[in-house]
Amino acid sequence: MTKVAVLGATGYTGIELVRLLLLHPQVELSLVSSDSRRGEKLSDAHPHFWGISDLVFSAPDPGELPPGVELVFCALPHGSSAEIVRSLKEAGVRVIDLSADFRLKQPSKYQEWYQRTHPCPELLEEAVYGLPEIYPQQVKAAHLVANPGCYPTSVLLPLIPLARQGLLPEKGVVVDSKSGVSGAGRSPAQGFHFPECNESFKAYRVASHQHTPEMEQELSFNLGSKLNLIFTPHLVPVNRGIISTSYLLLNNEAVGEKELRNILVDFYGETGFVKLLKPGVFPETRWVKGANYCHINFRLDERTGTVVMVSALDNLVKGAAGQAVQNMNLMMGLPEKTGLTHSALVP
Amino acid sequence: MTKVAVLGATGYTGIELVRLLLLHPQVELSLVSSDSRRGEKLSDAHPHFWGISDLVFSAPDPGELPPGVELVFCALPHGSSAEIVRSLKEAGVRVIDLSADFRLKQPSKYQEWYQRTHPCPELLEEAVYGLPEIYPQQVKAAHLVANPGCYPTSVLLPLIPLARQGLLPEKGVVVDSKSGVSGAGRSPAQGFHFPECNESFKAYRVASHQHTPEMEQELSFNLGSKLNLIFTPHLVPVNRGIISTSYLLLNNEAVGEKELRNILVDFYGETGFVKLLKPGVFPETRWVKGANYCHINFRLDERTGTVVMVSALDNLVKGAAGQAVQNMNLMMGLPEKTGLTHSALVP
Amino acid sequence: MTKVAVLGATGYTGIELVRLLLLHPQVELSLVSSDSRRGEKLSDAHPHFWGISDLVFSAPDPGELPPGVELVFCALPHGSSAEIVRSLKEAGVRVIDLSADFRLKQPSKYQEWYQRTHPCPELLEEAVYGLPEIYPQQVKAAHLVANPGCYPTSVLLPLIPLARQGLLPEKGVVVDSKSGVSGAGRSPAQGFHFPECNESFKAYRVASHQHTPEMEQELSFNLGSKLNLIFTPHLVPVNRGIISTSYLLLNNEAVGEKELRNILVDFYGETGFVKLLKPGVFPETRWVKGANYCHINFRLDERTGTVVMVSALDNLVKGAAGQAVQNMNLMMGLPEKTGLTHSALVP
Amino acid sequence: MTKVAVLGATGYTGIELVRLLLLHPQVELSLVSSDSRRGEKLSDAHPHFWGISDLVFSAPDPGELPPGVELVFCALPHGSSAEIVRSLKEAGVRVIDLSADFRLKQPSKYQEWYQRTHPCPELLEEAVYGLPEIYPQQVKAAHLVANPGCYPTSVLLPLIPLARQGLLPEKGVVVDSKSGVSGAGRSPAQGFHFPECNESFKAYRVASHQHTPEMEQELSFNLGSKLNLIFTPHLVPVNRGIISTSYLLLNNEAVGEKELRNILVDFYGETGFVKLLKPGVFPETRWVKGANYCHINFRLDERTGTVVMVSALDNLVKGAAGQAVQNMNLMMGLPEKTGLTHSALVP
Repeated sequence: MTKVAVLGATGYTGIELVRLLLLHPQVELSLVSSDSRRGEKLSDAHPHFWGISDLVFSAPDPGELPPGVELVFCALPHGSSAEIVRSLKEAGVRVIDLSADFRLKQPSKYQEWYQRTHPCPELLEEAVYGLPEIYPQQVKAAHLVANPGCYPTSVLLPLIPLARQGLLPEKGVVVDSKSGVSGAGRSPAQGFHFPECNESFKAYRVASHQHTPEMEQELSFNLGSKLNLIFTPHLVPVNRGIISTSYLLLNNEAVGEKELRNILVDFYGETGFVKLLKPGVFPETRWVKGANYCHINFRLDERTGTVVMVSALDNLVKGAAGQAVQNMNLMMGLPEKTGLTHSALVP
Repeated sequence: MTKVAVLGATGYTGIELVRLLLLHPQVELSLVSSDSRRGEKLSDAHPHFWGISDLVFSAPDPGELPPGVELVFCALPHGSSAEIVRSLKEAGVRVIDLSADFRLKQPSKYQEWYQRTHPCPELLEEAVYGLPEIYPQQVKAAHLVANPGCYPTSVLLPLIPLARQGLLPEKGVVVDSKSGVSGAGRSPAQGFHFPECNESFKAYRVASHQHTPEMEQELSFNLGSKLNLIFTPHLVPVNRGIISTSYLLLNNEAVGEKELRNILVDFYGETGFVKLLKPGVFPETRWVKGANYCHINFRLDERTGTVVMVSALDNLVKGAAGQAVQNMNLMMGLPEKTGLTHSALVP
Repeated sequence: MTKVAVLGATGYTGIELVRLLLLHPQVELSLVSSDSRRGEKLSDAHPHFWGISDLVFSAPDPGELPPGVELVFCALPHGSSAEIVRSLKEAGVRVIDLSADFRLKQPSKYQEWYQRTHPCPELLEEAVYGLPEIYPQQVKAAHLVANPGCYPTSVLLPLIPLARQGLLPEKGVVVDSKSGVSGAGRSPAQGFHFPECNESFKAYRVASHQHTPEMEQELSFNLGSKLNLIFTPHLVPVNRGIISTSYLLLNNEAVGEKELRNILVDFYGETGFVKLLKPGVFPETRWVKGANYCHINFRLDERTGTVVMVSALDNLVKGAAGQAVQNMNLMMGLPEKTGLTHSALVP
Repeated sequence: MTKVAVLGATGYTGIELVRLLLLHPQVELSLVSSDSRRGEKLSDAHPHFWGISDLVFSAPDPGELPPGVELVFCALPHGSSAEIVRSLKEAGVRVIDLSADFRLKQPSKYQEWYQRTHPCPELLEEAVYGLPEIYPQQVKAAHLVANPGCYPTSVLLPLIPLARQGLLPEKGVVVDSKSGVSGAGRSPAQGFHFPECNESFKAYRVASHQHTPEMEQELSFNLGSKLNLIFTPHLVPVNRGIISTSYLLLNNEAVGEKELRNILVDFYGETGFVKLLKPGVFPETRWVKGANYCHINFRLDERTGTVVMVSALDNLVKGAAGQAVQNMNLMMGLPEKTGLTHSALVP
């Protein structure tokens, strides 16, 4: 049994980590922390854990880790995560950081999109961008994994195989994403007050969302040249789920629907978490709700030569906590799918 | 008081027409029809009309119109509408048809996208495409108005002013739309069974939705050259509302955010149903739920040179029944906003 | 045109008052106030009023009323309303208070259930409990109307006719109510954060909700003897709507389903806002959403001798703002239904 | 590994059984059947099983069970289940029937409430009512378990401990239940079409729901005398979840809140699936969504002497498939919680 800890177990990402880790057959969840609830029982704060866990919240203090903890999940807010990650690293534990703090390789991009100076630029180089389907060897060896954002995971998984074939254009890729409300976190705010967002939907942070540079970084790296994309996120009144619809004019007109399908099948095979659906069946978020799968499909619109790529995942699972557990499996030498083979909760 | 009739008053569009016409101060709703419910009271079929209307469903027979009816709304299914429209025309009443049967000017396009031969091609030429902000004079004079589709209205209102300035590119316009479930009609089906679509969302009819040619026809006509667009609709689990997010690289790099804003303000002014929101405020469907307004806003993404245009309307009001009433107002010489000045129902 | 003002036009009740008053053909809305938004345009705070009203928020200062205002709606929080009501009364305007401050006749009950000393006990006697179907003459003559709570309206309308016939038992009446989330107000809080209450429901304030004494007061008064009831409210994840299900063993075994139906029909007739549905058709909140109707129906369970009474209304309309407008109509000598004859927004 | 089969794996109960059985560490799901989809892959009908199961639907023919199947779950419609259960029994396999066919001990009650003659009355005596917390020994020994209804489970679990203490009154128990829409099954119908039930709620089958006799049978049996209850179900627009609010005047005035709490704690302890929440914390359906727990709490209203008991469960898990798996565990000699220890999916 691998001993692990979750720092920040009161936000949605942290709660989801706890749920998944309590299901995991090879892991012992030794500590959960919360600044605001230290000393309280996990199951008092989150009654769905009654009867399942007797853990009590600790302070999120790297110095108080129980002996034997090998890996720590940091589910702390952006900005406040980096310092704690540094302490954990110094204490010799491996870290999976679910904040945005170590995803961008260039501190200047962090400054530009998060409007703050990066607190620990010296760790950026060793941080591995934790997309396990894309960087499996690097994740296995990593001591610090920057767990990707939910939107980027939904976009990168279907597009990186095309990028690696050089098929993405450098300009004009449009990504239109839609997300459930849990992606906005657990802090109450007017815009997420139930009657304000129920039965309504909208675009937000149009052409200015902070996940944009993360997608551009990874697509550019895998394409081998600098790519800019246009990204618009939308808020949909459901708890969980992301659909990303990407539009691309391929660089190579000779590549048709069949070739694209082959590229994706070759890349992902039939046994992992990324599923290319049958032709004509497009992803629905309910098929991945609570599960670690990413469903994808596409259509090549012959009238316009445009590939419309659609992907779906659960922003809290494959878009956050599930992907983190998948990364942990690789880091700990466990089979990649351990503890993650449950299906979505339908309906 | 203008006497009017609604044929097909059991579907969502028909019900909404009844709601709006009962509110209208200058109209007398003389007849509602339904094949399946003839002889039944409107308020037994739709208990929200108890105490508001004593109408009884007639058969949808053009020969049974009460004397004095000047205008008929046809809210019948696509395909079965055309024949009845012809009879109505022959009987000398003016018609607003809410089906798709008279929207496409070319019968071949109808054949291609609706997979049936057009039943009344001889009426296509005189049918006026009923976007009253775009074709006010034609609507005023019309005897047959083809009321636009919900998705097309949401896309055409923000884009036609740019088309008229020649700013739209002929290729590469991407339209990503999201709609509530009432857009799919009132007939039960597995995909719209509550637990199947609640808490889930998806893309559907990717690059193949039948509203595509209607948008292309109108954008091409106003642009003055043939335009193709890429259109993907999505289903969102709310009752009402559409958000369309359109992406366009302008033809003219000299046109900036300010010029675009001026074009839209000049076109729509401040007193109609189309509202350009303040800079930075993007439309939310709740602000137009139940109302005849279309809210729009855009951002010019300087990183990529792309205009991201966002529009919102209620698919049953400005996207169907409200627009039909607005057309009726013009046809009957009434002030355009008569009976349509109520606000959205918030929350 | 009657000039009126709305104090507190940023909460849900205030917003709904504005919506209804802007629809009202005999009213001019002269002033809206908000402490937090004074000086801002109404339509900037609530974009669904764009194009419909140019009002600017004033301070909620009774001294600043425009000349000619005859009636003021107070939609201020419980507790802070009473003082302002006193000032308004002194200024000679008629007041409809939508807070709970003047609903309970006994200051001691106010103290017991609201945990504060009543700030203006001297006004309690003249305040009329504003259920216009029950107290029409008193409302017409009133200078201060205490607009009833949403739950009490849903319970009192079906039960008072039975109370007046002496049919209610003094003990054992059970009222199980379910409400949409707008009933909890517009201030963000953890429990009303979208993902916390979406797709979930619950009982709350079990046997301790502050609307209990208001129901007991009115039922006891109309019954002529002291009645206690057991009341449990529940939170349902919709924006609007209340269903109250009341259980009563009649005092008189000779009264059957037919007699009960006659009592209700005699009391409410066929032309008002309270509708007894056809036998076997039970109320659904969608049929009253946005409208001022209250739908009721019941079944006498012969196995147990219990009457199960079900009622539905929109908590923001007949449960708050619509009822206030109805009271205003009576106070101003207008026909009772003026401005309130629109149907629900379905779907 | 115990080999099991699920007959009727396309309805919500069947799908949920598949989900849970695929998670179960001691079970091999050998067969799933469907009349309408025989020959099709499970994962084509239900894409959330892609990558998780390669099963193909068989016909629901008891003669085609794979060798070694020891237990069969019947998730077939009421009425059509009984004949197949008889065949399975004759074939020597143990059966858990999730229909209503074997829940009522008296064929006359079945006739009365289900309007059909019972097809296999000879099996009623041996059928064990499958509430494992109440009848553990009988379930362990059973060859035919009648899995309880969702509403009855929610009501019986909190009330049977009181019944066993003789505390329930024979008359006047009121049960007001609220359920999500999956309880109505998976077949499309007008009333469950998304826009017809979304954002709306209602009572239905008032004082006439077919789960009533099942509750009366079990409460009467455990009380030792005949009890009648008044039961009203309500439909709430969520996918999953039941809240039952029960109102009872205890037989014994000396029993206070503390004694009640002790009775429940003594009965259920701290390690099972039934959880008495802390004083003042009332159940929310989200805390049990997807999990096999039933959360309960109560308040003794001192003003009226009434106990208000509130319980929550997931109608598809503890109210159907999860309870069936729990029964299977007992029947197969496995620890009762095997495969059922996952938490709810929050949010």
